[in-house]
Amino acid sequence: MGTRSIKQVTVVGTGVIGNGWAARFLSQGYDVIATDPAPGAEERMRLSVQRAWPALEKMGLAAGASKDRLRFEPDLAKAVAVADLIQENAPEREELKRRLLAEIDRHAKPDAIIASSTSGLMPSTLQADCIRPERVIVAHPFNPVYLIPLVEVVGGEKTAPEVVAVAEQFYQSIQMKPLVVSAEIEGHVADRLMEAIWREALHIVNDGIATTEEVDAAIIYGPGLRWALMGPFLTLHLAGGEQGMRHMLEQFGPALKLPWTKLEAPELTEDLRNQVIAGCERQTAGHSIAGLEVRRDSFLIELQRLLEKYWPGANLNGNI
Amino acid sequence: MGTRSIKQVTVVGTGVIGNGWAARFLSQGYDVIATDPAPGAEERMRLSVQRAWPALEKMGLAAGASKDRLRFEPDLAKAVAVADLIQENAPEREELKRRLLAEIDRHAKPDAIIASSTSGLMPSTLQADCIRPERVIVAHPFNPVYLIPLVEVVGGEKTAPEVVAVAEQFYQSIQMKPLVVSAEIEGHVADRLMEAIWREALHIVNDGIATTEEVDAAIIYGPGLRWALMGPFLTLHLAGGEQGMRHMLEQFGPALKLPWTKLEAPELTEDLRNQVIAGCERQTAGHSIAGLEVRRDSFLIELQRLLEKYWPGANLNGNI
Repeated sequence: MGTRSIKQVTVVGTGVIGNGWAARFLSQGYDVIATDPAPGAEERMRLSVQRAWPALEKMGLAAGASKDRLRFEPDLAKAVAVADLIQENAPEREELKRRLLAEIDRHAKPDAIIASSTSGLMPSTLQADCIRPERVIVAHPFNPVYLIPLVEVVGGEKTAPEVVAVAEQFYQSIQMKPLVVSAEIEGHVADRLMEAIWREALHIVNDGIATTEEVDAAIIYGPGLRWALMGPFLTLHLAGGEQGMRHMLEQFGPALKLPWTKLEAPELTEDLRNQVIAGCERQTAGHSIAGLEVRRDSFLIELQRLLEKYWPGANLNGNI
Repeated sequence: MGTRSIKQVTVVGTGVIGNGWAARFLSQGYDVIATDPAPGAEERMRLSVQRAWPALEKMGLAAGASKDRLRFEPDLAKAVAVADLIQENAPEREELKRRLLAEIDRHAKPDAIIASSTSGLMPSTLQADCIRPERVIVAHPFNPVYLIPLVEVVGGEKTAPEVVAVAEQFYQSIQMKPLVVSAEIEGHVADRLMEAIWREALHIVNDGIATTEEVDAAIIYGPGLRWALMGPFLTLHLAGGEQGMRHMLEQFGPALKLPWTKLEAPELTEDLRNQVIAGCERQTAGHSIAGLEVRRDSFLIELQRLLEKYWPGANLNGNI
């Protein structure tokens, strides 16, 4: 943990991501303070933590963990004043986040770490208005935050390397897999990959090639089964026979020049928007979102146990 | 099965994909004939089937299934003459596949179905030189073919609809999930999605943002966990809270205009090629491909059982 110890955590902004962070922190035995100016935020947050709790119990709670160790504090200054780490989850608008982070920076303890959950913005941009920019980082999680282990940790030009190292250890200590990304880039790493598949999926629907159900099926029963275990590179490495990736690049390298993807994002027209929404609602007809979340969560727990069982040495730095 | 019954299957071309088909057909109780002009093809194929067999035994063999019901026939004309369905798996070169399919067409029974495993070419192109183009389709599988259930079935301009219907039922009967794609398009559906992520992953490595290990980790511990269960659309639908996809499009629709992906494929330079190969070899240091395949296969079996357990109603046409 370096020279700092993180004991008190504050969550700023309590949408799906902020609530997910709160549930994860609580399950790991932390006291959590949360703040959000929206009416009804506290009630929604407590409901959200309650829904996540059975999954977290299955994953295993830390000693002393309790969902009652959550305190809601409407005043931002008070909410961040006592925190060792502040996790910011405001809407994804640059000017809003910059202003909010500067305000957090003014009220936080001098050595508190300020982490933004931004999916796309760069830490150098976000820390620009802070008095102590050296303790500002990006720590980008994935929904559901209380179960998905990946968190991308990125420092800005003015971030102290020690802060990145402490944050990495902290996220590891709460059962996450921090991926420290040394280069600042819009969308970090995972969202760039997700965005690529997302844009292509939107084109396929927009062009009438396949429905959302069919696109999802084309992933679920095909590449998705392999990516969960191996990611895009190892998947191809194992598809290349004994010669592995070498053979794949010889055989499929030339396909990079073929028109196999649409290379620009489609216009998100009213029509496309409606097709995509209707498709998803059709696929889940007769199920509540809450019910689907419970199924998803149970699956994710067992899938992660499977990953652990079959790819036990896998980690972000070492070999398989 | 319509008016036709598929009893005898012939596999033309015995690389990784052809051998995977042979193993799946055998495990489902079929007699399989295989042909390939390459020296040593028969030996490699039998070894490959033998390696796949323990996984297939775990999945469950059909009554009477045996890996000894494989016959190798070096003469193409003889190999295809008695088949009800011929699965072609030659290298991905248009002129080669066209010539080969025309030759298969000349020697096959008039009502035999000829299915090409092509990952990118369109059936209208492939059937152009055939005397009976109406029985030529694309049936594109995914590695490992003996375990991954997805197969994309596509007819060309001259394909009889009845042939597509019979093929769909046949692939279903051998425990696959056929996705009938009504529009012809380069790369069909799944490979377009894979190619999008693949191109972006290559850019990330090429630009020095992350290594192959880190890219794989960014999928395995993040989006990959969700895609295996839900595909890209439902994943976002469930990330949007109660409003689902509607909320996601409002919140992240504008990101389609941001430079979150590189929109053209990178030059596959010697340097990039080497980075990618070295990365994969580093990730698997100390493991044989065969050993990794065994682990992957066991995982895939359990993962598919998980999918069945948690998303039981999921299929290509209906609701979840």
